[in-house]
This record gives sequence, C-alpha cells and structure tokens, in this order.
Amino acid sequence: MTLDIVVLPGDGVGPEVTDEAVRVLDWFVAKRGVPLRMTRHLFGSASWTAQGTTMPDETWAAIMAADALLFGAVGSLDQKQIPAEERRKGSLLRMRKGLDVFANLRPVRAWPALAESSPFKARTVAGADLIFVRELTAGMYFGTPRGIETQADGTRRGVNTHTYTEAEIARVARFALGLARTRRNHLTSVDKANVMEAGALWREVVTAIHAAEFPDVTLEHMLADNCALQLGRAPTRFDVIVTDNLFGDLLSDCAGAINGSLGMLPSAALSAPDANGRRRALYEPIHGSAPDIAGKGIANPLGAILSAALLLRWTAQAPAEADRLEAAVEAALAGGARTADIALPGEPVLSTRAMADAVIAALDAA
Amino acid sequence: MTLDIVVLPGDGVGPEVTDEAVRVLDWFVAKRGVPLRMTRHLFGSASWTAQGTTMPDETWAAIMAADALLFGAVGSLDQKQIPAEERRKGSLLRMRKGLDVFANLRPVRAWPALAESSPFKARTVAGADLIFVRELTAGMYFGTPRGIETQADGTRRGVNTHTYTEAEIARVARFALGLARTRRNHLTSVDKANVMEAGALWREVVTAIHAAEFPDVTLEHMLADNCALQLGRAPTRFDVIVTDNLFGDLLSDCAGAINGSLGMLPSAALSAPDANGRRRALYEPIHGSAPDIAGKGIANPLGAILSAALLLRWTAQAPAEADRLEAAVEAALAGGARTADIALPGEPVLSTRAMADAVIAALDAA
Ligand SMILES: CC(C)[C@H](C(=O)O)[C@@H](O)C(=O)O
Ligand SMILES: CC(C)[C@H](C(=O)O)[C@@H](O)C(=O)O
Repeated sequence: MTLDIVVLPGDGVGPEVTDEAVRVLDWFVAKRGVPLRMTRHLFGSASWTAQGTTMPDETWAAIMAADALLFGAVGSLDQKQIPAEERRKGSLLRMRKGLDVFANLRPVRAWPALAESSPFKARTVAGADLIFVRELTAGMYFGTPRGIETQADGTRRGVNTHTYTEAEIARVARFALGLARTRRNHLTSVDKANVMEAGALWREVVTAIHAAEFPDVTLEHMLADNCALQLGRAPTRFDVIVTDNLFGDLLSDCAGAINGSLGMLPSAALSAPDANGRRRALYEPIHGSAPDIAGKGIANPLGAILSAALLLRWTAQAPAEADRLEAAVEAALAGGARTADIALPGEPVLSTRAMADAVIAALDAA
Repeated sequence: MTLDIVVLPGDGVGPEVTDEAVRVLDWFVAKRGVPLRMTRHLFGSASWTAQGTTMPDETWAAIMAADALLFGAVGSLDQKQIPAEERRKGSLLRMRKGLDVFANLRPVRAWPALAESSPFKARTVAGADLIFVRELTAGMYFGTPRGIETQADGTRRGVNTHTYTEAEIARVARFALGLARTRRNHLTSVDKANVMEAGALWREVVTAIHAAEFPDVTLEHMLADNCALQLGRAPTRFDVIVTDNLFGDLLSDCAGAINGSLGMLPSAALSAPDANGRRRALYEPIHGSAPDIAGKGIANPLGAILSAALLLRWTAQAPAEADRLEAAVEAALAGGARTADIALPGEPVLSTRAMADAVIAALDAA
C-alpha cells in the first residue's frame, strides 16, 4: 500500500528545507522501495497571497485524509497583514488539534561531529541522546476561558487556562512509557506539582499508569525548573522526558542549545492508532520560518531531513531505513559538511542544497 | 535608623547557609557600620515539629513588620507529614504574596574563576552578566479558578489559571526598564504572545510603558521558547530580562546552568516603595532546601552570601558595600575556594563554613 504524504512547505525557509527532505525521501522511494506518494499543497502566507485564504478547502481535505504531513514552517514577516481569523485557519495549532496528534516526539542528540561548535563543553554533552514526548493538543495552548477581558475599573486583564484531564495525561504517559521500553527504559516526567494542581494530577496519573502497566520502566518525577537546569548541567542523565504542551515547548528549546542550533532538530507529532494500528502524523523541523534568511538557500535542511527519518520510522514503519538516513546525516557531518548555523568561524559553509547533496552522497556510498 | 532584618533559616540546608550569610552581614555591621539588627525566627518544618505550626503568629507579625527578610529554604523530606493547610501557612508563596514583593531579581553572572567547572565552553559564557526581573505575585502561581474537579463522566480534570492585569504588567515593566537604565540600557521582555492572549497583553503593555516613559532603553520582545535556547547559545546577549512568574521560574534555572550550580545564585524580591521610598524585601538563595545534603556542612553558602550583597544594595542602600562583598566572593573564588558543587574532580573542597571564612578573609584583606 502506497502511503499518501501531504507536503506543506509553507513560509520562509519552509520551502527550501522541505524540498531537500522530499529529495531525500525520493531516494528512499527509488533506491529502497519505500512506498511513498508525495504531493505538495498550498497553505499559509503563500496561499493567502495566491488565493486569499491561508488554508484552501482542498488542502484541509488532503491533510485530514493523508497518512502523514511533511511540514516546513509557518509564519512570515507579513503575517501581520493577514486577518486573525485567517491566521488561525492556516495555523499549526489548528492542524495539531484537527489531527489529534497528541504525542510530539522531539529527539535531541549531541552529534559527535558538532562537539566543537556546541556551546557546551564536550564533557557535558558527549553521548547525550534524549527524546521529549511533549503533549501537543491540550494544556495552556487550548484551554478556555482565554482572552483579554475588561474589568470593572475599565482596565484589561489577560487570561489563559491550563487544563489536563486524566485521559489526556494517561494517553501521553502510556505513549512515553512504551517508548522508554524501546530505548534505555528510563522516563522523566516533568511538572510543577509543587505549585499547580494540574501538575499534581499529572504526577498522580503518570504514577498510576506506570505502576499498573509499566512497572519495569524506571520512572522519576522532576520539577520543570529543575529540568531546565539539568538539561544544561547533565543532559546525558535523560532518556525519555514526558511533559505538558507549554513546558515541552520551553524545555525542548532549552535542550536545543546542546547542538548550538535548532537547525538540527526534527520532530514528529503522532495521534492514537486507528483500528488498523495506523497513526496520523505531522513531521516538521523545530526551527521556524526564519524570515531573515528565507530565500537565500543557506538554511540548514538537516532538521527537515531528520524529520523525514522520523517519517520512515513511524509512518513507513521502516526502522532500518530511518537508521540508514540518520547514519548518512552523521557521515555527512563527520565528513565536514556544515551549513552556516553549525559552522565554526573559518569553516567552509555549504548551501541548503549542498548539505542535502552530502547526505544523499553518504546514502549512495553506504 | 537601624534596619530590622528578620532571619528565617527554615529547612534543609537553609540554616547552614543562612548562618554564614548572617556572619558576613555581621562583618558589615562591625567593620563598615551598616545599621542592621538581625533576629532569627522559627517557621517551616522545624517550627511544625517544635510548635505544631509552620508559621507561628509571632513570626508572621515579625515578617510583616520587618525591613527585610533573609530567607534560607523551605521544604524537607518530611513535608508530606504536614497537613496541606499548614504547609500553605508556612509557604514561600504566602510570604511573597503577603509582602507583595512583585519584582524578583535574579542576577546571573559567569564567574571567571568558574570557567573550568561550567558545563559551557568559556567562549559561550565569558562575560555573561544578566539579571532576571521575574514577576512574583501573579500569573499561574496565584490565578483562579484552580484545583482538581470531577467531570460529568466521573474522571478528573486539573485546572490552573494564568492571568495578568494591565496594572500587574505595568509595575514590573517599569521596574525592569528602570533597572536597565542603571545597567547596559537593554531590556528583553519574554512572553508567548504567539499562543497566549495574556502574553499578547503583556507585550502590548510593556511596549506602551517603554514608549511613554523609557524610550531611551533598548527594548526587544522574545518568545519564551527562543529565550530558553538563546540563554544556552548566547547568554552574553542579555542584560535585563523581564518575564512572568512561571517563565521566570524556568528560564532563571536555565540560566543557572551557566555556572553549573544553583548554589551560586542569589535573589531579591522587592515590593513597590512606600511613601518613604522604602521597599519590603525578601532575600533568598535560589537553591532549595536540598535535603540530601542537609546537616553535612557541605552546602555552598555563596547563594546566601550573594543574597546578603543584594540586601546591602537594595535594603541598606549601600551599593559600595554590595560591590565590596561581590568582589570578596570573586576574590575567594579566584583564590581557589570551592565547595563540592563547583569543584572540578580532584580539586580540594571546602566546607560551608570554610567557604564563608574565605569570603570574610577576602573582606579583611581588601
Ligand atoms: C510556532 C509555535 C506556535 C510553536 C509552539 O509554541 O508550539 C513552536 O514554538 C513549536 O515549538 O512548535
Ligand atoms: C519552591 C518553589 C515554589 C519556587 C517557585 O516555583 O517559585 C522556586 O522554584 C523558586 O524559583 O523560587
């Protein structure tokens, strides 16, 4: 069965890096027989300019029907000109919620070849290999009531609501505990249970699911502020980290400093499996649209390419091919391939296209 | 006029490090004529054990009447045995709210002598000297509704509310902009305005106060996730950072990794000035009660001692004495004084007491 992959290049550097991820996936279709059919669809600012809507009906229908999305980036310098309602229609948050992709995987590893360009000492980060499971469809991002209200005295007050139900906590906890079993069997669950009742419930539910269904996994609880510190002090102590939507947003960027650039970081967002065991999935590099460097051909495509590796692993269910692609990225880096964001002063710098060429050359050579 | 300083050693390592901060302040009273009268008061677990309450009325009255509090830490391994209501009575959050100390200063600098023990490369952190102004009396920590509610289907849901009024944002923005003027004239305001309406209001109010009252200060806005990354990538780019209660909690710990140990970090929490221009103030090291090392005499007292320096600066209004104390800490570190948390493997390690002795010796020598 051929898998239907909807490609959404989007704004800013999105098209540049997505083109390279597609080119790499084409290699796996042609050379390794991975059954993917990729089709590009318009959305976001480009679509607003062309068609007066950030989310054409045709694109939304394709998104809802797809086996997976390969997403570039959304948000551009001229977003302010797009009415709020239209911005929401084409937003990442609407896609995440619409697809119910609650489990956001954000792997972070210290690439040995980048030890010199990392802001950290090698002794701090060498061997770091952790993965966030960030809850992606609830919490502060979606809670109501929300908005800006006018008080009795005429001044305003901003309100957002953080909520989690037991069911929302349980499903992401189960996912993270199951993932830990396939790795080093260690889960860190992160909350602010000392201050937030919703965090206390989070801790209680994770503890219960662990005891009932995954007692073989080592579970620790950690406060979110301490986790921010430990990610900088001792990132190698982590294996799988499960946390809520907002903490996951901050802490995964915190860990992103390990390589000195968000440009290296991929992500996958997965739904619950359907009756046939298939999960909907949204793959995207963690870096945003980076309007300041858009169109220059200098963005790092490795976040997008490593997102394609996650697609091979989770949607194509071809872990050996995913490993092959990750090894090719490692080989390209070891061979000295660097985009501007990961180069040391004086090191030769590759274009977006040339970096992808280096990865494809490594695939051919392997 | 003698300043009335209420000393609250509290739990865990609190008494050990607070004793040393008091000893250092005694030096300033005796040798530099700083007019402080320090009195110790019971609260927290120790008080629960002795008197059956975490917050004796006498202590609360002293807190509310004091010119400043010198606080150790709260929270111990046997906290769970204390009823929730009593834990709240003796809690840090109740003191922060009761004193209305909305402006939480958390300076972070890269101490040159600790360049080797920092998890970061020297080129990343050398020269870093930033200060958080964390809003401390509103936001997620205090918003209502909050709690765990039972839904129609019998399962539970955790709820916390994040709210800020214009007035709450304005006063902390004014404080931070004023502080920036006394430093390098640069303010970074941190929010998630792209996701949270309360963050959009935050941004709007900070922008308006800046334009109307502090146009000479350079103001930038930054998303909280990006700030987490930049604190690891390029901490030297920051001067003053203003943010809300929850983001401030995480981001200041993130920056804490710069020295590799929270043990180095002081804080001050200040109220609005009264009619005589006096602010209530709560000084505390950022590290917690650290029950695992309590009673061993090995905790780093520098967070508490540097909090005493903030007391000299903000409550005693003796900036030259504050500078003198910070220089003595720097001299002690430069002379090789290290507690366990900041020592490299093989380096000789000082006790809590001996570290304070090294600081006092540096004061005497200067
Ligand atoms: C673009 C933004 C809405 C998004 C988020 O906050 O989730 C981004 O920061 C991310 O982490 O994917
Ligand atoms: C102990 C805890 C309530 C506190 C907080 O979350 O504010 C601490 O982490 C801090 O940063 O002072």
